Amino acid sequence: MVKKKVQKLPSIKRLPAYLQELKAFRKEGMQVVSTTQLAKRLQLEAIVVRKDLEITGASGSPGVGYGLEQLINDIETYLGWNNTSDIFLVGAGSLGTALLGYKGFLEYGLNIVAAFDADPAKVGGMIHDKKVLAMSSFTNLVQRMKIHMAILCVPGEHAQECADMMVRAGIKAIWNFTNEPLTLPENVVVQRVNLAGQLAVLSVKLAEKLKEEKAE
Amino acid sequence: MVKKKVQKLPSIKRLPAYLQELKAFRKEGMQVVSTTQLAKRLQLEAIVVRKDLEITGASGSPGVGYGLEQLINDIETYLGWNNTSDIFLVGAGSLGTALLGYKGFLEYGLNIVAAFDADPAKVGGMIHDKKVLAMSSFTNLVQRMKIHMAILCVPGEHAQECADMMVRAGIKAIWNFTNEPLTLPENVVVQRVNLAGQLAVLSVKLAEKLKEEKAE
Repeated sequence: MVKKKVQKLPSIKRLPAYLQELKAFRKEGMQVVSTTQLAKRLQLEAIVVRKDLEITGASGSPGVGYGLEQLINDIETYLGWNNTSDIFLVGAGSLGTALLGYKGFLEYGLNIVAAFDADPAKVGGMIHDKKVLAMSSFTNLVQRMKIHMAILCVPGEHAQECADMMVRAGIKAIWNFTNEPLTLPENVVVQRVNLAGQLAVLSVKLAEKLKEEKAE
Repeated sequence: MVKKKVQKLPSIKRLPAYLQELKAFRKEGMQVVSTTQLAKRLQLEAIVVRKDLEITGASGSPGVGYGLEQLINDIETYLGWNNTSDIFLVGAGSLGTALLGYKGFLEYGLNIVAAFDADPAKVGGMIHDKKVLAMSSFTNLVQRMKIHMAILCVPGEHAQECADMMVRAGIKAIWNFTNEPLTLPENVVVQRVNLAGQLAVLSVKLAEKLKEEKAE
């Protein structure tokens, strides 16, 4: 059971790319799409495409393909992206501000309804049309607005305590944009975007490449 | 050889978190730090910390620890973060604009010197104090300014062609912020930040959790 869930992850991660291609096909006026067409666009094997789409419950007709509109709907329903989910952002620093200004989240059915910050100078203000509220009002608002998801982008040294506070407030899914791994109860879902870690890998690999090239 | 490189990756990804803690220690006035202290702060095993730091060439004294300043310097030198690297950003859409406004990159020695966009309405303007230039000037500037790294955040359907253009221009490392995986020559380093894919996983896992809780 656990294994099955893990195997699904790469498929789930590819679904947004399918959605994007399907919407591009729709713009081109297509109404039916085959796994072969999708596979070609996404540089994947057709069998992978078939298996990926299967997890959403979408079913195509052999030799014909999928109804484009239906397939888009099936994927969005599976991801829960056809209903907008409200999300809170905690930590309105430089990265938090950038994320507040990113309009692409709405495409994924994600609406950042408010930001929270510990800095009294920021509280009460607006960033990219979103209100910045005091940390002390977080728990109350999570419960009143029935918020399940939160974006964590506080400074690393506050990441764990802040995540603990989120969980106590009732948050079930945390998108962790800090450098810190989090230790949280099993019933809380976490995804980590380790930008600094990725950049570290990019920097080291690039330095190795440049050294190799010089040596040649 | 290949295996060794792959095993190093988790260590490299953790280095920014070490840097962050070390700088916090420095603020507290500490001059020497032990693996045990670092392990505790980062919730890691001491042996992992020792091995992680080993790859940077840092050496501590048994029973004493590492000189704090020296260790910070060793890590930054290994990552190349003590010298600022110039990087170009291609695609000044919503995500690109957010990244241009993110000041945290400078902490990692990364300086976005200019943005490039295909939209004539944007070209010639400024976004967060960075100039937006025409795509047609990309190759020339990469070569003249000896730029090795680029951030890719164009719409998904242009990701591959744009990455190909970057490689032809001489870019050696691409930080891919699109939903699309890229097919590139082996001598080009790529790191992908699949925000939409991560959000898809978060959404599906959250939906599963909420369903489980309802069933209980």
